[in-house]
Amino acid sequence: MIEKLQETFHNRCHFDFTRILVVGVSGGPDSLCLLDILYKSGLKLVLAHMNHQLRAEADQEANNIRKIAHGYGIPCVVKEENVGVYAEVHSLSVEEAARILRYRFLFSEAERRDAQAVAVGHTADDQVETVLMHLLRGSGLEGLMGMEAWQVPNAWSKEIALARPLLGIWREEIEAYCRENDLTPSIDLSNFEKTYFRNRLRHEAIPFLETYSPHLKEKLLRMAEVLRGDLQVLDPVVESTWRECLKQVGDGYVAFKREVLNEQLEGMQRRLMRRAMDQLRPGLRDIGFEVVERGLSLLKRAGSGGRVDLADGLRLVVEGETVWVAAWEADLPETGWPQVKGQPIYLYIPGSISLGDGWQMDLQTVLDVEEGKQLAFHNNDPYQAWLDVDEISGALELRSRREGDRIKPLGMEGQRVKLSDLMVNVKMPHRARTGWPLVCCPDEVLWIPGYATSHTSRIQPGSKRIIHISLIHRG
Amino acid sequence: MIEKLQETFHNRCHFDFTRILVVGVSGGPDSLCLLDILYKSGLKLVLAHMNHQLRAEADQEANNIRKIAHGYGIPCVVKEENVGVYAEVHSLSVEEAARILRYRFLFSEAERRDAQAVAVGHTADDQVETVLMHLLRGSGLEGLMGMEAWQVPNAWSKEIALARPLLGIWREEIEAYCRENDLTPSIDLSNFEKTYFRNRLRHEAIPFLETYSPHLKEKLLRMAEVLRGDLQVLDPVVESTWRECLKQVGDGYVAFKREVLNEQLEGMQRRLMRRAMDQLRPGLRDIGFEVVERGLSLLKRAGSGGRVDLADGLRLVVEGETVWVAAWEADLPETGWPQVKGQPIYLYIPGSISLGDGWQMDLQTVLDVEEGKQLAFHNNDPYQAWLDVDEISGALELRSRREGDRIKPLGMEGQRVKLSDLMVNVKMPHRARTGWPLVCCPDEVLWIPGYATSHTSRIQPGSKRIIHISLIHRG
Repeated sequence: MIEKLQETFHNRCHFDFTRILVVGVSGGPDSLCLLDILYKSGLKLVLAHMNHQLRAEADQEANNIRKIAHGYGIPCVVKEENVGVYAEVHSLSVEEAARILRYRFLFSEAERRDAQAVAVGHTADDQVETVLMHLLRGSGLEGLMGMEAWQVPNAWSKEIALARPLLGIWREEIEAYCRENDLTPSIDLSNFEKTYFRNRLRHEAIPFLETYSPHLKEKLLRMAEVLRGDLQVLDPVVESTWRECLKQVGDGYVAFKREVLNEQLEGMQRRLMRRAMDQLRPGLRDIGFEVVERGLSLLKRAGSGGRVDLADGLRLVVEGETVWVAAWEADLPETGWPQVKGQPIYLYIPGSISLGDGWQMDLQTVLDVEEGKQLAFHNNDPYQAWLDVDEISGALELRSRREGDRIKPLGMEGQRVKLSDLMVNVKMPHRARTGWPLVCCPDEVLWIPGYATSHTSRIQPGSKRIIHISLIHRG
Repeated sequence: MIEKLQETFHNRCHFDFTRILVVGVSGGPDSLCLLDILYKSGLKLVLAHMNHQLRAEADQEANNIRKIAHGYGIPCVVKEENVGVYAEVHSLSVEEAARILRYRFLFSEAERRDAQAVAVGHTADDQVETVLMHLLRGSGLEGLMGMEAWQVPNAWSKEIALARPLLGIWREEIEAYCRENDLTPSIDLSNFEKTYFRNRLRHEAIPFLETYSPHLKEKLLRMAEVLRGDLQVLDPVVESTWRECLKQVGDGYVAFKREVLNEQLEGMQRRLMRRAMDQLRPGLRDIGFEVVERGLSLLKRAGSGGRVDLADGLRLVVEGETVWVAAWEADLPETGWPQVKGQPIYLYIPGSISLGDGWQMDLQTVLDVEEGKQLAFHNNDPYQAWLDVDEISGALELRSRREGDRIKPLGMEGQRVKLSDLMVNVKMPHRARTGWPLVCCPDEVLWIPGYATSHTSRIQPGSKRIIHISLIHRG
């Protein structure tokens, strides 16, 4: 047992012998053993006990613990909390209420004293029960690996660790330790502190499953250990992929680069999605399998875009080159699209128009057109276009879409298509469509900057009068 | 159900509709449903059935299956095997014997017909039982994720896949399918084919655990799915780290670069060690946790080296800069150390001696020693040494170690230490020590090439007669 403890102390619990450690003591064998061992290892301790005020003996137990602290010569804080009332007010089970109040007390005490950590007496048996509990919920790697011996950040603090030095020690060993060291636990509170579910696991399910597999508890404890190691290998990979996929983090949303996210393995996409949800809803426990799968399946099928509900007011939005995990109420940024509003603008050549948000459209005549050189105007930058003015009837204007707009996209042999259909086909983000700038003549759309030019005004070998238009973002 | 099947067909099972698929059919509902679905999806099938000859009805069942194949108009192969005899000869349970013979038959049939895969009727229920079985054994990620829907390579073939298209379909759904499609299973063999342990899990443990967690089976199925995704993320990371750590793979051994291996996280070290063991003993199942932990702990503590038994005649050897996972009988290479054998060799100056394996020792007098320049002879290449000849009594010789050898290592103020202790301290590989070349005078060791020089013959400000010795590997 001493060897196992030393292993935990040195490899898992990063104790600082110069700083205070708050030990949560209930009076049961686990916490008495913990206290004794920590004391003997020379740590600077403060004992903390919560009086649950749920039973008649509670005050007597608290007094008993004060005496124990006095015996060791270490400071002792006892706090009285009316757990019953708290449970009722917050509609919690008594066990859950007691747990919350206890940890709050321990960590507030630790903060007040600038302690390095709060130590609690979870044992290997508790660990196995936790693993099994998570398994029965169908939990992932994080659940199956159980509790951590040194957890920081944790649910109660970002800086003060939650230490569980006894996580590798079996209850039997602890009881033997108590006997050998003349530690007399008061009435065992630990069973009271467990939920009904946990107690049933301990006294019924585990003995039952042991008939299937001897040494089951040891096996599960080791399994948890190995899975923890795997997760430690996974974590940095997920972290670096997260950074690779991340576009932006804003108020109520996380934006991923769609293409990079889509390239990832399904398992990685699951982890990134969970991580985004966790970032937006830090308290959100047990994100369901279906929730994540719903998101994954949208990622797979979303063409020009789509949206799907996740959980707890979060949704997944796929738009153009961006995938958002966002709160419903979040105001997603426009991602800097060029947009026009209001009346059409007549286009003068040469000329320059500011569209707002740093976007500017420049128009000029290309004067010297050498025979045969026109084809070079078909370039790869979709934010530049060359039009044959002689093919255009009527004045050029810049405007947003209208009901019934049509275009003959270049490359479709003059076929007319609905602008709305084209916008879907080219995967223009849904929210961007209404205000997207269009260069039009009265009859048709000639250029959709970034997406398509018209067959009508295309440059041909005989083209004479050519204009060049560019839409540039000046930041 | 059709939707779920399509998902499996398209995303998991990579069926080639132009190539043959061998379907293993027992006559139970799972395999009849499988056969019907595969047939209707238009795959080129060959039906294969093994007559276990364990029960009176076996021949009748085989005939029944021939009729079913005839009804579909697909080829049918029936093989008779005396499972009972095989089980007895190989000391196997009847179920295990049947399983081995069945898969051998299916895959040999597939090979004969150049089939793409062997399809078997494992269901979601089978998957959950597998997961639970592995959990009870305390298995790692690979076990907890259960069986694969498309497994290649597998235990039976490196090229022909083992396909399990029904892995996402519940037994209930399969039974409903059989009823709706007028498929009449012969006596259900599937229960017979399961082991006692599996049957107990199905009929006792799972219903019991469902009282703890409603929809437990669905939860475990999803858990397996998520864990599979995590493993898919892990795999390439392990693969690239494997390549990074690997030094050499030889007959009966895998050699790692010790320093690189030591830098890895514990979880990664576990996976690399398991992979090395798997490479050396491909059939080795269930490598125990303790085995791997024994290896890890040697890695952590081994100073100058050490060795520890792993399992199945494998050991872990830490030597110098190398970590070996090796069979006991493997002849580990000497990694090119300089070694001497036989009688001492008198050293003439100037002179040159070949030690074998490409190693050569050169000796020469340094003629012009300028005052104050001698200190420059203290260099950083441990395979070169300068000795003050005036401080040496007796002739110089080159030899291997002897009982009682001593040296006064430079930097220890003339203190004498045992050569054997020094070799441990400087982490000289154990196997290299006996033959390591030493430059000695009758009284003491003066130079251990690569490791230490002597205080006795050190160069001092007044040194006049200096010799230079180098040990060079000429390849």
